[in-house]
Amino acid sequence: MSTTTTYQITGMTCGHCAGAVTRELSVLPGVHDVEVDLGSGTAKVTSDAVLPIDAVRNAVDEAGYELAGVDA
Amino acid sequence: MSTTTTYQITGMTCGHCAGAVTRELSVLPGVHDVEVDLGSGTAKVTSDAVLPIDAVRNAVDEAGYELAGVDA
Repeated sequence: MSTTTTYQITGMTCGHCAGAVTRELSVLPGVHDVEVDLGSGTAKVTSDAVLPIDAVRNAVDEAGYELAGVDA
Repeated sequence: MSTTTTYQITGMTCGHCAGAVTRELSVLPGVHDVEVDLGSGTAKVTSDAVLPIDAVRNAVDEAGYELAGVDA
């Protein structure tokens, strides 16, 4: 079983930003895959289970950006 | 004796970009200081002597950006 959630993230402007967000989200427990799309400002995260929103917010914040929302 | 030259660089969008450009320019022979300004898209480089433009262009290219011009 795995679930995929798309997070809206503000402030990412370049490949370095995408890399930083990908790294921080990838090390969260249960995360298998992270795909950042700069054009839409989103990160699609595949994980064992739905992630605690605070953990995601903290990871995005650690990378230097802001979690703006979650797509169902 | 030292000289300061301001280079116009296109494509820098965030602090990571500024860091990458700063790192590549800082290791050029004779360079003492690099100050990148994202707002104006410039890098102010202080060095022993005027740098060969090809060396600067290569360094900026290595960082992933483009040298667009030089201010006297």
